[in-house]
Amino acid sequence: MFNSFGEIFRFTTFGESHGKAIGVVIDGVPAGINFDEKFLINELKRRRPGQNRFATQRKEEDFPEVLSGIFKGKTTGTPIAIVIFNKNAKSNDYSNIKDIFRPGHADFTYFNKYGIRDYRGGGRSSARETAARVAAGAVAKMILKEFNIEIEAGIIEIGGIRAEDIDFNYSKNSPILALDKEKEKIWMDLIDEARKNHDSLGGVVKLRIKNTPIGLGEPIYYKLDNILASAILSINAVKGIYIGNINSHKLKGSKNNDEINKNGFLSNNSGGILGGISNGENIELEVYFKPTPSIFQTQKSIDINKNEVEVNLKGRHDPIVAIRGAVVAESMAACVVADMLMINSTRRIDNFKKIYY
Amino acid sequence: MFNSFGEIFRFTTFGESHGKAIGVVIDGVPAGINFDEKFLINELKRRRPGQNRFATQRKEEDFPEVLSGIFKGKTTGTPIAIVIFNKNAKSNDYSNIKDIFRPGHADFTYFNKYGIRDYRGGGRSSARETAARVAAGAVAKMILKEFNIEIEAGIIEIGGIRAEDIDFNYSKNSPILALDKEKEKIWMDLIDEARKNHDSLGGVVKLRIKNTPIGLGEPIYYKLDNILASAILSINAVKGIYIGNINSHKLKGSKNNDEINKNGFLSNNSGGILGGISNGENIELEVYFKPTPSIFQTQKSIDINKNEVEVNLKGRHDPIVAIRGAVVAESMAACVVADMLMINSTRRIDNFKKIYY
Amino acid sequence: MFNSFGEIFRFTTFGESHGKAIGVVIDGVPAGINFDEKFLINELKRRRPGQNRFATQRKEEDFPEVLSGIFKGKTTGTPIAIVIFNKNAKSNDYSNIKDIFRPGHADFTYFNKYGIRDYRGGGRSSARETAARVAAGAVAKMILKEFNIEIEAGIIEIGGIRAEDIDFNYSKNSPILALDKEKEKIWMDLIDEARKNHDSLGGVVKLRIKNTPIGLGEPIYYKLDNILASAILSINAVKGIYIGNINSHKLKGSKNNDEINKNGFLSNNSGGILGGISNGENIELEVYFKPTPSIFQTQKSIDINKNEVEVNLKGRHDPIVAIRGAVVAESMAACVVADMLMINSTRRIDNFKKIYY
Amino acid sequence: MFNSFGEIFRFTTFGESHGKAIGVVIDGVPAGINFDEKFLINELKRRRPGQNRFATQRKEEDFPEVLSGIFKGKTTGTPIAIVIFNKNAKSNDYSNIKDIFRPGHADFTYFNKYGIRDYRGGGRSSARETAARVAAGAVAKMILKEFNIEIEAGIIEIGGIRAEDIDFNYSKNSPILALDKEKEKIWMDLIDEARKNHDSLGGVVKLRIKNTPIGLGEPIYYKLDNILASAILSINAVKGIYIGNINSHKLKGSKNNDEINKNGFLSNNSGGILGGISNGENIELEVYFKPTPSIFQTQKSIDINKNEVEVNLKGRHDPIVAIRGAVVAESMAACVVADMLMINSTRRIDNFKKIYY
Repeated sequence: MFNSFGEIFRFTTFGESHGKAIGVVIDGVPAGINFDEKFLINELKRRRPGQNRFATQRKEEDFPEVLSGIFKGKTTGTPIAIVIFNKNAKSNDYSNIKDIFRPGHADFTYFNKYGIRDYRGGGRSSARETAARVAAGAVAKMILKEFNIEIEAGIIEIGGIRAEDIDFNYSKNSPILALDKEKEKIWMDLIDEARKNHDSLGGVVKLRIKNTPIGLGEPIYYKLDNILASAILSINAVKGIYIGNINSHKLKGSKNNDEINKNGFLSNNSGGILGGISNGENIELEVYFKPTPSIFQTQKSIDINKNEVEVNLKGRHDPIVAIRGAVVAESMAACVVADMLMINSTRRIDNFKKIYY
Repeated sequence: MFNSFGEIFRFTTFGESHGKAIGVVIDGVPAGINFDEKFLINELKRRRPGQNRFATQRKEEDFPEVLSGIFKGKTTGTPIAIVIFNKNAKSNDYSNIKDIFRPGHADFTYFNKYGIRDYRGGGRSSARETAARVAAGAVAKMILKEFNIEIEAGIIEIGGIRAEDIDFNYSKNSPILALDKEKEKIWMDLIDEARKNHDSLGGVVKLRIKNTPIGLGEPIYYKLDNILASAILSINAVKGIYIGNINSHKLKGSKNNDEINKNGFLSNNSGGILGGISNGENIELEVYFKPTPSIFQTQKSIDINKNEVEVNLKGRHDPIVAIRGAVVAESMAACVVADMLMINSTRRIDNFKKIYY
Repeated sequence: MFNSFGEIFRFTTFGESHGKAIGVVIDGVPAGINFDEKFLINELKRRRPGQNRFATQRKEEDFPEVLSGIFKGKTTGTPIAIVIFNKNAKSNDYSNIKDIFRPGHADFTYFNKYGIRDYRGGGRSSARETAARVAAGAVAKMILKEFNIEIEAGIIEIGGIRAEDIDFNYSKNSPILALDKEKEKIWMDLIDEARKNHDSLGGVVKLRIKNTPIGLGEPIYYKLDNILASAILSINAVKGIYIGNINSHKLKGSKNNDEINKNGFLSNNSGGILGGISNGENIELEVYFKPTPSIFQTQKSIDINKNEVEVNLKGRHDPIVAIRGAVVAESMAACVVADMLMINSTRRIDNFKKIYY
Repeated sequence: MFNSFGEIFRFTTFGESHGKAIGVVIDGVPAGINFDEKFLINELKRRRPGQNRFATQRKEEDFPEVLSGIFKGKTTGTPIAIVIFNKNAKSNDYSNIKDIFRPGHADFTYFNKYGIRDYRGGGRSSARETAARVAAGAVAKMILKEFNIEIEAGIIEIGGIRAEDIDFNYSKNSPILALDKEKEKIWMDLIDEARKNHDSLGGVVKLRIKNTPIGLGEPIYYKLDNILASAILSINAVKGIYIGNINSHKLKGSKNNDEINKNGFLSNNSGGILGGISNGENIELEVYFKPTPSIFQTQKSIDINKNEVEVNLKGRHDPIVAIRGAVVAESMAACVVADMLMINSTRRIDNFKKIYY
């Protein structure tokens, strides 16, 4: 229950950052989909650290082994297990902070919850777990491709400086996934400065889902928006989400309502969701990432015996998690949409008649 | 699956705004809790419309009938069903918009999803459904009371004007649940003005959970924060949520990390959650409500046959949903925390030994 | 979780035998099905006690009130809540056994599990709860009718005397649902004798599902057979189930395997299920009911303070539960098949293309 | 959903008989349990084929690699992934029946359900998948050991010949897990004869759970008995289950009811479960296995193009699946009991007070 997500399209992840492997089992994938292993590898590459100076320099090969669920290039309807063995796990990197809680990290809460401390680089709470989500998301995207549904995400804000012009095509080739060409350089400078100062930065990701049919989302507690929120807030370092126009709460109804004519909606303040159900417009949302908690300045903390200590972290970490987080957000959104597509198909008796007769 | 929420403490709601009744079945409530029916009635009263000019003038009696699960004043461990019969359901109020989609409302998406239109006042998508959530939340709060856990919520922003001083005690007696005495009058004037102009307002609710033990929240996909997000975003008109300091995404890590000493955390930017698990600090979050979509100005829309029309709504509606929404947000948060308390108790073998030996 | 059954077609029941009401909330019913309230009433009548001397003489009116989910005679896709108010609940019938555990009953285990004793006629563990299942089953059957799937059940064995000729049509008009006209009289005599002797009888129900499409059932843990087993064994007094030829475990493979030709299977030892998936043949199974535990002879027991006592029950009870249990078994099977139909429709990408294009 | 079992203790299996690997992810294991890898290996060995002439002579090494969830010999509360790589997978063994449906097997239904045929030895429907269940069961047994709960299973009937004296200790050293020393030789002869005749045999397993506390099982739909039934019937080749005295349905209430005195129950016809809840007695049940469908006689069947064909299987198969099936039944029962232990701990407010105060 705890390490699974979704209802019909349902995946389960496992693994610790410094254990033998991480992985995912994806259940509920319909039979008959072309399985594109190259695409899977490429999605993992998009998330992978160590690719440029804007991300951690750790090298993780992240090579996915597909253990089940595929036969002759097609999904069979059985669970797809994907394992990524950890090849670069140096547990000794962490020995100096073995008994110390790192500010902003989960080690304090994990230790108090479970009574056990896997001090090796975050263990289960490490962002490394998100590679398994990206593998699940890659499979979800293979499903969405059958319906021409596309998901894209990029950086809309770093260090409080916000994009003015949004261009998802530009971000696809930007090393920091910048949505705004004009701001890209400013943001890069901010990141360089933060790294130099042994500090880190928060940021905001804008995510867009195109070509969703009307009808996705299950009132009242499995709505498209609340499950997207659950998916997105489960990602490490995410603190907030906003669906649609991020000023809606400041607006009057007369400005915020999206009027309709025969061609569709005249605006999209709703972000493509009404009453928890997709309305056929683009689904748009923003994701708020806190700054990377791993910084290289001296910080006050305690150890597992409640002694006060000073923490000085070593190692390599992203100066900003939002960039790689954008790929993870895409992946989680893809899983939600795939799940919703399948569930929605069961909500009208007419649909069954198309299948069973 | 769709109309249920929670895993162990799990409730299921039913009912349409203009049907015979709405209600809730609450499963998983432990045996032996004092059932406080007066408290239940009072919680429903807090959400109820028609109490002052800042909310809709519709009168709904909202009297809860408890049908099961209680014996001699105590919970028995069996499901608690609570039904509220609709006594004030005038379907004819809605006959003039029978075939017309109201901008900002869910009738467009419901009709396209289900192929059927229950045009009577929103049907299932009506905010009236939230009374059933408040009933569930009241039962959850009875559980939380056993652990001294308290949940409180109030208004922190209306019309873009934000509170400066936060006082949860003040809000308890404010007709608009204002958290800031100084801003209360300004906000009231904004609401009066919006009503006079046949318009509506969005707003922001701040919610706080006090006295939670460390350890609530189940990594990786049933974290305290992502399930709170799911709970809160499932509420009508909510478009966003932010956990902790709402500027975290703008901050540097050196400012955002909460340092620790032997007495606890030196700040609470995290909003009391690290790695998806409560850290013992107050849990704090903000909820972003869009303006009430029901406004009384002429709006462009289409009917079910795709003819373009002008909509002119009648009836009575809240000029701002955030106020009553604060009570609903409290209720949903209470359900999440009750659920997490129970699940967390199963996560260490030591705990079982206390019970079974 | 505990009081719900099914995944997509998912119902939740509530209520105690001597509380205010019992009821059910049925979620996941597709929109657009003709809701046949007369059929619902009739199904409840089939299960209802007090209809002839072969069942308890208690009168229960069992009138269902449909509170939600239906608009203009059709399902809307929202949850259908059905409540049956208890009109004949005389708690005093049970005062003499208030503190005593009745042999064969659940009061011993409920008390020890929950620490609370609702001594009024079995409370939640009463067979009265099965009326809520029959209401859910009636709605499931409305769905199955769209696919011409039929479910029928009757008595195949009482008191160790087994039917020789099986005739489901005959059982439909038999007061004891006898599948064998020749055995009907013998069985009736056994029942009369048991009642006269203040005793009770066990029995066996045979259940058949006709016209199921090939493909229902989800390997590996939501197979058609294991979920039917879960559904059936959840019924009060059921101790066993057998799918297909009840001698399969005694047979050799060469006798038990069902050979195949172009017209289908040459025998049906499998009971219509292979690998957990329906194979297009009739689904056939047997259900084993223990004798009614409420007998009117002196029995040894203890009270809640562990004092040894003699129990002498009063009141009215079925001399055999298998007869009315047959109707409940049908209902549970209907719910399983409805659920499986919906889930199966999501298992091939081809199916989605029929719906979304 | 489909390939997972359990609610709190919840495992998910994956893998095909002739794919790269099979495996299991076990979620919900409490932190702090000593992880006994040798025991895991030994449990898998007990299920493993090729150990004597009463089972298939195929060699499967079944070496489990534990990928996650363990740190310094203890469970950490995170998911435990166990993978068994397939080392002996010869796909060509099956090429001669590539397009032919084998009588009694799942290939007909899988093909018709999914539209795809993984003809390699049963694929997902192969009994090889049960190794993953045994791995999950081994972990469940590590939990049960903390409570002194024991599960044992053996053969009580083969070829219609039933044990007279039951001795679980004897079965532990019997090559066919015979519960009756006197019948062991007879049963062995039957198996030898079946093998010689290219035929197979069905059988019955008796399973017993000792030292369960009172209170396990969650009414109404997650009862101990109906979930055991679901667990057991999900095992390949199982057609039936019976809880308690297998003659209960033939008995009168006066014989079947278990009377009570201050020391406990005077008999155990109920099989240790009343109202779906354990009553403190041994839990006892029987499991009915059909004969192995793989026999080496000529059988009539069809191919995927509906041409009539004769099937002649080659390869190596168990002459009787009930023996190795007994180990799988134990494993599934262990998983159910572990799950129920955890859930039950949440059903009384008193229990929480022991944990949180």
